[in-house]
Amino acid sequence: MKALVLEEKLRLSLREIELPREMGTRDVLIRVARVGICGSDVHYYKHGRIGPFEVKQPMVLGHEAAGIITAVGSEVRDLKPGDRVCMEPGIPDLASRASREGHYNLDAAVRFWATPPVHGCLTGEVVHPAAFTFKLPAHLSLAEGAMVEPFAVGMHAAGKAGVKPGATIVVIGAGPIGVMTALAALAAGAGQVLVSDLFSEKLAIAAQYRGLTPVNIRSESLAARVIEVTAGWGADVIFEASGSPKALEGIFDLLAPAGTLVLVGMPPEPVRLDVVAAQTKEARIETIFRYANVYPRAVALLASGKVDLKPLISAVFPFEQSISAFERAAEGRPADIKLQIALEESAA
Amino acid sequence: MKALVLEEKLRLSLREIELPREMGTRDVLIRVARVGICGSDVHYYKHGRIGPFEVKQPMVLGHEAAGIITAVGSEVRDLKPGDRVCMEPGIPDLASRASREGHYNLDAAVRFWATPPVHGCLTGEVVHPAAFTFKLPAHLSLAEGAMVEPFAVGMHAAGKAGVKPGATIVVIGAGPIGVMTALAALAAGAGQVLVSDLFSEKLAIAAQYRGLTPVNIRSESLAARVIEVTAGWGADVIFEASGSPKALEGIFDLLAPAGTLVLVGMPPEPVRLDVVAAQTKEARIETIFRYANVYPRAVALLASGKVDLKPLISAVFPFEQSISAFERAAEGRPADIKLQIALEESAA
Amino acid sequence: MKALVLEEKLRLSLREIELPREMGTRDVLIRVARVGICGSDVHYYKHGRIGPFEVKQPMVLGHEAAGIITAVGSEVRDLKPGDRVCMEPGIPDLASRASREGHYNLDAAVRFWATPPVHGCLTGEVVHPAAFTFKLPAHLSLAEGAMVEPFAVGMHAAGKAGVKPGATIVVIGAGPIGVMTALAALAAGAGQVLVSDLFSEKLAIAAQYRGLTPVNIRSESLAARVIEVTAGWGADVIFEASGSPKALEGIFDLLAPAGTLVLVGMPPEPVRLDVVAAQTKEARIETIFRYANVYPRAVALLASGKVDLKPLISAVFPFEQSISAFERAAEGRPADIKLQIALEESAA
Amino acid sequence: MKALVLEEKLRLSLREIELPREMGTRDVLIRVARVGICGSDVHYYKHGRIGPFEVKQPMVLGHEAAGIITAVGSEVRDLKPGDRVCMEPGIPDLASRASREGHYNLDAAVRFWATPPVHGCLTGEVVHPAAFTFKLPAHLSLAEGAMVEPFAVGMHAAGKAGVKPGATIVVIGAGPIGVMTALAALAAGAGQVLVSDLFSEKLAIAAQYRGLTPVNIRSESLAARVIEVTAGWGADVIFEASGSPKALEGIFDLLAPAGTLVLVGMPPEPVRLDVVAAQTKEARIETIFRYANVYPRAVALLASGKVDLKPLISAVFPFEQSISAFERAAEGRPADIKLQIALEESAA
Repeated sequence: MKALVLEEKLRLSLREIELPREMGTRDVLIRVARVGICGSDVHYYKHGRIGPFEVKQPMVLGHEAAGIITAVGSEVRDLKPGDRVCMEPGIPDLASRASREGHYNLDAAVRFWATPPVHGCLTGEVVHPAAFTFKLPAHLSLAEGAMVEPFAVGMHAAGKAGVKPGATIVVIGAGPIGVMTALAALAAGAGQVLVSDLFSEKLAIAAQYRGLTPVNIRSESLAARVIEVTAGWGADVIFEASGSPKALEGIFDLLAPAGTLVLVGMPPEPVRLDVVAAQTKEARIETIFRYANVYPRAVALLASGKVDLKPLISAVFPFEQSISAFERAAEGRPADIKLQIALEESAA
Repeated sequence: MKALVLEEKLRLSLREIELPREMGTRDVLIRVARVGICGSDVHYYKHGRIGPFEVKQPMVLGHEAAGIITAVGSEVRDLKPGDRVCMEPGIPDLASRASREGHYNLDAAVRFWATPPVHGCLTGEVVHPAAFTFKLPAHLSLAEGAMVEPFAVGMHAAGKAGVKPGATIVVIGAGPIGVMTALAALAAGAGQVLVSDLFSEKLAIAAQYRGLTPVNIRSESLAARVIEVTAGWGADVIFEASGSPKALEGIFDLLAPAGTLVLVGMPPEPVRLDVVAAQTKEARIETIFRYANVYPRAVALLASGKVDLKPLISAVFPFEQSISAFERAAEGRPADIKLQIALEESAA
Repeated sequence: MKALVLEEKLRLSLREIELPREMGTRDVLIRVARVGICGSDVHYYKHGRIGPFEVKQPMVLGHEAAGIITAVGSEVRDLKPGDRVCMEPGIPDLASRASREGHYNLDAAVRFWATPPVHGCLTGEVVHPAAFTFKLPAHLSLAEGAMVEPFAVGMHAAGKAGVKPGATIVVIGAGPIGVMTALAALAAGAGQVLVSDLFSEKLAIAAQYRGLTPVNIRSESLAARVIEVTAGWGADVIFEASGSPKALEGIFDLLAPAGTLVLVGMPPEPVRLDVVAAQTKEARIETIFRYANVYPRAVALLASGKVDLKPLISAVFPFEQSISAFERAAEGRPADIKLQIALEESAA
Repeated sequence: MKALVLEEKLRLSLREIELPREMGTRDVLIRVARVGICGSDVHYYKHGRIGPFEVKQPMVLGHEAAGIITAVGSEVRDLKPGDRVCMEPGIPDLASRASREGHYNLDAAVRFWATPPVHGCLTGEVVHPAAFTFKLPAHLSLAEGAMVEPFAVGMHAAGKAGVKPGATIVVIGAGPIGVMTALAALAAGAGQVLVSDLFSEKLAIAAQYRGLTPVNIRSESLAARVIEVTAGWGADVIFEASGSPKALEGIFDLLAPAGTLVLVGMPPEPVRLDVVAAQTKEARIETIFRYANVYPRAVALLASGKVDLKPLISAVFPFEQSISAFERAAEGRPADIKLQIALEESAA
């Protein structure tokens, strides 16, 4: 099977590779059609590791995928060949305590695509459990299907926050996860969402959406803006999606009493937290790790037309140009929200 | 002061009446501009009572109001003469235990407009606490301002339900509260909302809104439709907004496992509840009583443009024709979602 | 394998029966030591069915069990032969949507001991998934281990209620589930728990526990007592554990504003619910179906000494006298809270 | 009126001072009987300020109080002269948005005893709103009544945590707030509570309570102990009650997946928070600011006998020796959990 293989740090090949293909009775076989490039894929490409996860042997990249079912196991009931689907890339041990409690994303034994030593999905076909494979409605494209994975992160963040209808929300960071979190918060009921960043290119993309208000913190104070739009009360929820240690400085000044801060971004080092400032607001701080039980509702939201992720697909590369796609992703152009790879032209 | 007075059951006068006008340091004086007619107003008109609340002496009607501030008490900071505002019609004892716990709507000593023996607001001017008076943004009309009160009921119901983004919702009953609850649920994140009723006129109004799907239960089974759109899983939340005792029959067949039923409608008699059916789904049943702490976010949602209530205003009557307005409201025409009375033409 | 077999309604045999014994890599083999008799066992014995579940062929009874591990599958890590354990009697499909969401008790495909056509555990040995088998600390007896199952129902009810520390609680019904719910609520923080019943024998058993106050509703008004002990505020949580349709009459008079009613008992027919009375208190009504994710904390509570269930074991019968045990259980003596069957004398 | 006056940093007088005494219709007059010395009182004594709150003019100290009502305003219904009571020391603006939402502790305009420029209660008599004055049951002493205030902090922390029955809890810091938080968590359902500290004297006091397990982090690893007692799963809730910046180092290693960290202690500077470690556990972090709506249930818990705070009263000083009491408190003896001042001998 041909696949995009990270041989080692900074060395990609598009080549044949032997991949496990045993299919259980509750699995499906999927012809991969579209794969989005995630920041973590790029990070493995550039650095060969993320924290404790190190690329020690060649690994197929990619985990944001949609495709078409080509075969199903004997016990699969709700899916059939020809169905267009998107896939959750993590396969937990469903019998673990974390999984039984509904937090399968926290199961320590989870096998997640393109997280060493588990291969990703930038290849022609993958075997996947039916339980983590979700049918796309007829009018959702495979391109949108491949956006469900990063959108699920935003959905999970919005779900943790418990956004109340009409709430005022701040999202710090207008990268792909920031914008998708902002869109999830908007869909979850936000009356208005301020999205802050340093790059006007990123903010311009967020600003296309009605309900998202860009704030360029190079030219204006986010705190002042929040105080103004909330008449001094503060934001009901703040999503930190930049991962910048500086983002937490004075953050509780922006927060409403009894408000919630959701830490979505992953700062490389421990950050400074002003505990007393948080206490004065009696802030609740939520953290998220990927997502769980979000896909069906994420697909429903896209299908409803309430959320349109197509404007976030900045460019699409054919599978044969996967390496170029990664090179461009590695450039980190501010206006590139999401790059995708199309494995079969007709499928998109 | 001229007012619309319910002298006794079935007898209305538009006449001068002496009303209390002492203004405290934290009160505001408001020139009333628009008042919506609520089902409870009509019920007092037709029956002279609602449960234990009996009209024993002449009472001014009306509690869904917007107006313009004409004077403010010495301690009022956030409002000033000329501000266009809407008002929460219930004034609780803020020192009561229920109020201190954040449930001021459950305070037994609450004084609520047009609930005997408390006068309503269908009169030229009212004194009201600043804490329960909310400024309307410039682009919201006073007509929309007078819709905030019934919309707050829907917002409160949606808040209790904890609608998750992308959820599938059912609203039983397409009257004013049903439609406003459906719109609140949609704003709160619903992916799709099925609204059921027996009257096609009512459903036609709901159907104007993208995201609301009408289901006429004269011609099709709501249960079958829910099972179809949710692939057998059931609705995440059901709002019962008809008050019909029949609405609860078999209702848990429509509900998803661990789903929520919110009882918004007020059936005149106890209803039959299938406890074992509820337990099999481990259903949570929420009830609501008016609303609390909802106005700021309701105004924000209307201001954001995410919710447009103007299509629900079926007709507007000048103050001088208030009695005609009530007579029409008493007819209960299916297509009349909300009738309003305009106290000053220029204000609307 | 010898087992207590319900051949058909009203006919029990203690006889050899062929039982499935294939053991998977994640299963354990358990020598059954103690089994409690549940109301549902007795109901199958007397009526041959519970709702849609009908005994159509001989079925082994029993699902409240503790025992000793005799063998473990190759992938089992946390258990070993010799471990004393208790078992959750329901085995769900862990890949179902309900299970993935943390509600494995609501999975429609669950296989639950002694629920037709699934055999129970009143037999010498059973195979069970390690994931639903829980080790007992050294100082907990197997007799107590067999009490974990019914106690888990009370724990689940208390968990749903969200009992706040110092809360005033009412439990209606002093049967086994009522008392165990009362003890769970007490352990969950209740300041005081009123337990009501018609039978003084049952109440006398509840009254042994400090913190449980018996109220015999033959001789005094529960409502009056609640109003007295709460200075008019009402109970924070009411657990309905009698299953009596009359229990819901006027029940919201006892409830505090924003209080919670948990429906634990299973009335045979739909009951009358006063919706408006519930709304006036803005009551939340929770229902429960068995339990999920409760065993580890239930065992921890028993191990801590905070909850002592031994006084609720009314009598213990040797396995050979199982039929006599069921005959006595079928008598329904008020003072019999829990009857147990000891499969091996030395194990208890 | 004689009072204990902090004239300025490090200078106390027991002298006559003019205090406001206007009594409103909903106020009560209370003869102060017992006052506990809080760390904040000592901090004002030693440093003359806490953060932005600076002692600029003489201020009466003390805010943990119980007393006896000597007069009531004309609208007070639930209290009468002779009632033994404890008092919430903060008087919020009940009409503020924070108060209306149930978070009156977060109202910026709150007037809190012994927080500059508001006088405290170490004086003969105080006027207080009835709404923040709570009757003590007959068998609770005034000494215990004066413990309700610090215990309320622990109750509020336990409430925020949402301790599930049978949970394993860690409390870092065995000072007065740490121990009271541990006792609140135990009462709220904890199966076991590990309390850690550096001082064996403090731990010895905690160890008197069944259910509290002391861990001296000078001699053993808290992390290792938590891993051991939870079989590797981690603590369900950790309360940080030391205020030490070092306490957060590696703290998420101790936490169960989806567990909760409650920040009770107030570190003088921002602390380092390992965001990625928190995310891996999907930790929720709660902060608290004093308490709200806790007193009635705190009094109920003490009255129930489930929580006994008397062992925490290390010494009692007569009013005339108040200055000595503060000098001793300022020593910070490890075994001094709570020092109290008795204003009238017969009252205690």
